[in-house]
Amino acid sequence: MNERINVAILGATGAVGQRFIQLLQNHPWMRVAAVVASDRSAGRTYREAANWVLTGTPPTEVADLTVLPLDADPGTPLVFSALPATVAFDRELALAADGAVVCSNVKSHRMTEDVPLLIPEVNADHADLVAVQRRNRGWSGGALVTSPNCTATPIVMALAALKPFGIKQVSTVSMQAVSGAGYPGVASLDIFDNVVPFISGEEDKVETETVKMLGTLQGGRITPLDAVISAQCNRVPVLDGHLVAISVALESRPSLEQVREAWQNFRGSKLVASLPSAPEVPLILHEAPDRPQPRRDRDAGDGMSAAVGRLRACPLLGYKFVAMAHNTVRGAAGGAILNAELLVAMGCVDGVTP
Amino acid sequence: MNERINVAILGATGAVGQRFIQLLQNHPWMRVAAVVASDRSAGRTYREAANWVLTGTPPTEVADLTVLPLDADPGTPLVFSALPATVAFDRELALAADGAVVCSNVKSHRMTEDVPLLIPEVNADHADLVAVQRRNRGWSGGALVTSPNCTATPIVMALAALKPFGIKQVSTVSMQAVSGAGYPGVASLDIFDNVVPFISGEEDKVETETVKMLGTLQGGRITPLDAVISAQCNRVPVLDGHLVAISVALESRPSLEQVREAWQNFRGSKLVASLPSAPEVPLILHEAPDRPQPRRDRDAGDGMSAAVGRLRACPLLGYKFVAMAHNTVRGAAGGAILNAELLVAMGCVDGVTP
Amino acid sequence: MNERINVAILGATGAVGQRFIQLLQNHPWMRVAAVVASDRSAGRTYREAANWVLTGTPPTEVADLTVLPLDADPGTPLVFSALPATVAFDRELALAADGAVVCSNVKSHRMTEDVPLLIPEVNADHADLVAVQRRNRGWSGGALVTSPNCTATPIVMALAALKPFGIKQVSTVSMQAVSGAGYPGVASLDIFDNVVPFISGEEDKVETETVKMLGTLQGGRITPLDAVISAQCNRVPVLDGHLVAISVALESRPSLEQVREAWQNFRGSKLVASLPSAPEVPLILHEAPDRPQPRRDRDAGDGMSAAVGRLRACPLLGYKFVAMAHNTVRGAAGGAILNAELLVAMGCVDGVTP
Amino acid sequence: MNERINVAILGATGAVGQRFIQLLQNHPWMRVAAVVASDRSAGRTYREAANWVLTGTPPTEVADLTVLPLDADPGTPLVFSALPATVAFDRELALAADGAVVCSNVKSHRMTEDVPLLIPEVNADHADLVAVQRRNRGWSGGALVTSPNCTATPIVMALAALKPFGIKQVSTVSMQAVSGAGYPGVASLDIFDNVVPFISGEEDKVETETVKMLGTLQGGRITPLDAVISAQCNRVPVLDGHLVAISVALESRPSLEQVREAWQNFRGSKLVASLPSAPEVPLILHEAPDRPQPRRDRDAGDGMSAAVGRLRACPLLGYKFVAMAHNTVRGAAGGAILNAELLVAMGCVDGVTP
Repeated sequence: MNERINVAILGATGAVGQRFIQLLQNHPWMRVAAVVASDRSAGRTYREAANWVLTGTPPTEVADLTVLPLDADPGTPLVFSALPATVAFDRELALAADGAVVCSNVKSHRMTEDVPLLIPEVNADHADLVAVQRRNRGWSGGALVTSPNCTATPIVMALAALKPFGIKQVSTVSMQAVSGAGYPGVASLDIFDNVVPFISGEEDKVETETVKMLGTLQGGRITPLDAVISAQCNRVPVLDGHLVAISVALESRPSLEQVREAWQNFRGSKLVASLPSAPEVPLILHEAPDRPQPRRDRDAGDGMSAAVGRLRACPLLGYKFVAMAHNTVRGAAGGAILNAELLVAMGCVDGVTP
Repeated sequence: MNERINVAILGATGAVGQRFIQLLQNHPWMRVAAVVASDRSAGRTYREAANWVLTGTPPTEVADLTVLPLDADPGTPLVFSALPATVAFDRELALAADGAVVCSNVKSHRMTEDVPLLIPEVNADHADLVAVQRRNRGWSGGALVTSPNCTATPIVMALAALKPFGIKQVSTVSMQAVSGAGYPGVASLDIFDNVVPFISGEEDKVETETVKMLGTLQGGRITPLDAVISAQCNRVPVLDGHLVAISVALESRPSLEQVREAWQNFRGSKLVASLPSAPEVPLILHEAPDRPQPRRDRDAGDGMSAAVGRLRACPLLGYKFVAMAHNTVRGAAGGAILNAELLVAMGCVDGVTP
Repeated sequence: MNERINVAILGATGAVGQRFIQLLQNHPWMRVAAVVASDRSAGRTYREAANWVLTGTPPTEVADLTVLPLDADPGTPLVFSALPATVAFDRELALAADGAVVCSNVKSHRMTEDVPLLIPEVNADHADLVAVQRRNRGWSGGALVTSPNCTATPIVMALAALKPFGIKQVSTVSMQAVSGAGYPGVASLDIFDNVVPFISGEEDKVETETVKMLGTLQGGRITPLDAVISAQCNRVPVLDGHLVAISVALESRPSLEQVREAWQNFRGSKLVASLPSAPEVPLILHEAPDRPQPRRDRDAGDGMSAAVGRLRACPLLGYKFVAMAHNTVRGAAGGAILNAELLVAMGCVDGVTP
Repeated sequence: MNERINVAILGATGAVGQRFIQLLQNHPWMRVAAVVASDRSAGRTYREAANWVLTGTPPTEVADLTVLPLDADPGTPLVFSALPATVAFDRELALAADGAVVCSNVKSHRMTEDVPLLIPEVNADHADLVAVQRRNRGWSGGALVTSPNCTATPIVMALAALKPFGIKQVSTVSMQAVSGAGYPGVASLDIFDNVVPFISGEEDKVETETVKMLGTLQGGRITPLDAVISAQCNRVPVLDGHLVAISVALESRPSLEQVREAWQNFRGSKLVASLPSAPEVPLILHEAPDRPQPRRDRDAGDGMSAAVGRLRACPLLGYKFVAMAHNTVRGAAGGAILNAELLVAMGCVDGVTP
């Protein structure tokens, strides 16, 4: 690649928008050329407009950009979206129709039939929906591609390796970090010394997105995985990292050792493994009885490696274990960036030769 | 009752021992007459020996007691035990053989066939095992009675009301408070901004104690509930209150409304409801979508009311919901005190007429 | 008192408004007859309008009240205000001019010359400003009375006992709980695993309110204490309870023992001590080297007792120590209620004979 | 340097010992060749012996080392010590007498007259005490060098730049992270939702070490800074990063702008700035009103940059501000490593040419 691709961040001042900017600093293929946010922020420099909630301060090259209003044309071939769902649907659609490849982390288009919902190590082949989508909609260069809910992410990464064993039933109970709710998000008066056993809309997302991602693309449409999945979602007083306790029924009844091997051997395709944001090991298998843990394991692979551990027999479904991923890196901004890299590598971004 | 019954606290300086002392302050039937702890503490006043971890300071009348060594005879008809499991088995046995009614919160004797494992609102009839036990062991006045694991407590209280529907399968994932591990217990470096998905021995306790308590006493022995139960236990950064996400399969497939009614109607027997530590409502049904929560609901009924909420259909087992109880009150010291009150009321404590 | 006085709560749905309602439940002299909040809440029942952030749920008798809009006349002789400062100034003034005794916890009128800023155990005599105020403003029954900033509260309570020694210089560094910022208040993303060394406007309040309260009322006006005070304010990850590290220079150079005695002997007047919300001991002196602590000591005296401890020599100013008070009880709603009780007892509330 | 210097870590399994190992991974000049710990750990591999409390897992090359007992001769020219103070004094002395350069983070020898207490950017010239020490004690190659208390570190780094203005009085109140107490250290039951206003021995260390480090080496001895300093130390629920609220009296009464400039211009010598662990900016001046904050600023300069901010006039001493540093990096292991690099660069480590 001769020069870096200009990208825009929609919803750039929010918590996930900030992660996009942090992760794209020094990115070998892309540079943040435009930051888009609400009218309240538009017209100010990013430095003034953003209440930076991550560590340190925003990278200088972005801090000096002037924030564009939501309806401005960012003029970049690649667009990342972390918009509020209320405005994302229309705006993402309009930009894609105008020719941009939109990699969204928002729920709005995730379950749309011709929109790929991607975790590259899991279902890179679903990216072929881009061609279907373009045909359906009469688009040439534009596309809508989505990354999943932050809790669905570690669940799907852990289950993907088990698909050959025949996944029939899945029970998941999540313990989710506060950063998943954005900023200001969860009030400290609500979550200090507390667990909140409810996150609006979350359980439905986990249940539907999981079977879509683990489904099969055939004849231009995805047949979702034929498995029953039940999700319970809780907020816990943790900054980053969603941990999920999972039980699963597997048709072929592999040994625990076979399950462990499946996880150890789990890798994306060569193309995926070569992408700049792909971690060396997408799914780290922990042997210590008390791992993975959010604080100690969320930053593995620069936040892009998910983790599994505590595999043991479940008297109910056969297998139980714990999965974990960094919810704003792998489960949000980092995941969307990896999707964009995949599209670039596949030649789906107009005028960009990988 | 003309005068209060003298009671002893074994393991009085630990976190649960402190709760016993706090809860027995101004108790209408009992007064703390002896505090027993390790040799390191023995001979000092309780004030000096105990590093009080609860709010405020120890009650004066107990603070002035001299701590007795473990092998001393406390000389009280009723004994509460919060000893470390390593020493509890032998010491509790010896005191019971010597004629004391020992109400233990320790795991050592919980699963022994002729030892009742009690939550009075759930299985007060299991207290009849005391007679069996005395016959078996040739004891006259002594007895061993146990209260369950702190996580099993809310699970059993929530399930007890559902027993008539035919409980077949139960999946539980707990989010447990740090106070459950005693003092010093969980290091802040381990649990700040973190979840630890492992508590040694806990899952086995939940699985075995639950079916014992929900079982049936017949012909002098308990037949455990015939249900498959799978437990996953996690430590979260919360001070007090264990929350459990539960899925359950019920044979008679009641409506959600019928389940709610069963919970609302759940009460102990008249005798149990009249005990001094029995809460007005043993199980509070929450209607708000985000309740119960540990911090906001653990102190209901002075910490003796468990709570349920978020009942909804489970695609996997049929029903899912959340249960919660204060782990060191209802789930430990308070539960054992309620057990002792039941035994007193049943006339099982020698020389004490209710 | 034959029947309880009707009171209104302005800003009833906020965090401090909720504390007013919680503390007035079962109050022997007063009953909450009206709840006033923003237009967004008006017209709904309190149960629907308030997102209850304290433990448990709102008292039934208040939960059923319909929330009045800000400009409604609550029609009660006593009014408590926890309004946002932006609207408090005008609304409190209007209600007082209309004849209500307004006990405000808001900053708006605190530093006004003829408005008493009261901690009854410290400066009950300043309540005589009510007569001055009525004369000045041509009011008959109405009055404006204020309670201080939550951080100034423990500082002033600790210093009041030392006034006879001649306070010359005071250095204070606070570690303040998140509940001081109301609800939603401090975002968990800002304060988890963090300290925020800045609270807007807080240091100025501490410095000015402290010398006013410790000042002398003479000839109808208050001469502030002639002492230099420097405040530094920090937010820490604690729910309730503001802790302050204090150094002080005392003119008469008392021994540490004399300072301790002054604190131990510190009591309000007989009238003040007899008020329903007055704690038995307004200022608890701790002897343990690591007390007071927010979590373990904030609820002493039902949250109305402040605490001091760790007195030792300061190489710089002579004396250093730690003070603490519950910021939303003694430092906000509870303090304002105690002020109201004082006014009632002094016969300042029209038509109410104590 | 042709090959890396072998170093030993004393107290390698503790929390600070782990930081040494983490920070020395891939160090350009040094490699960890020996790990020394208590007899309980000796003989096991480091992997087995250490309960790794940092993120991730121990570096493989160290994890495979066998832990040596305390009295073993590690046989390395450079030794880092994070031993418990109870054993550090004798063991460090013995190794130095035997010819090792011991860079200790323990208090035992810090205040000894001929032992340098170093922060290289502040008082690298005090390293000349090594020659005095060798002469005094008849040592040839060995030496004892110490790094300061973790709270004294940010205080001294902030004050060093102000020394030319004539520091006369300093008041400090610290808010210290739990990692400062080692592992298991602070129990979660003590510090959750709490502040503990006491850390044994800490205030004395801050007061004495600060004036030693800011003192002047002349004629082979250090004259401490002639300033009165008063310290108050508190533990807050934060993982890493000690924040200190400071007031200071400066003789020459510089403007706030001059103070800011002094901080901005503060740099170590060229030699110090060239050391591998020296951060680009040793003291970062923050302009945002609510910075520095522990979580957001502790990792600046890989944890080696201290931070200052919130400079404003103090009505009492003239100047007040906030300082912060990572307590286990700059304030412990990282500081000791920088000291060792300085000694290597000065040619003080036998057989090692810089």
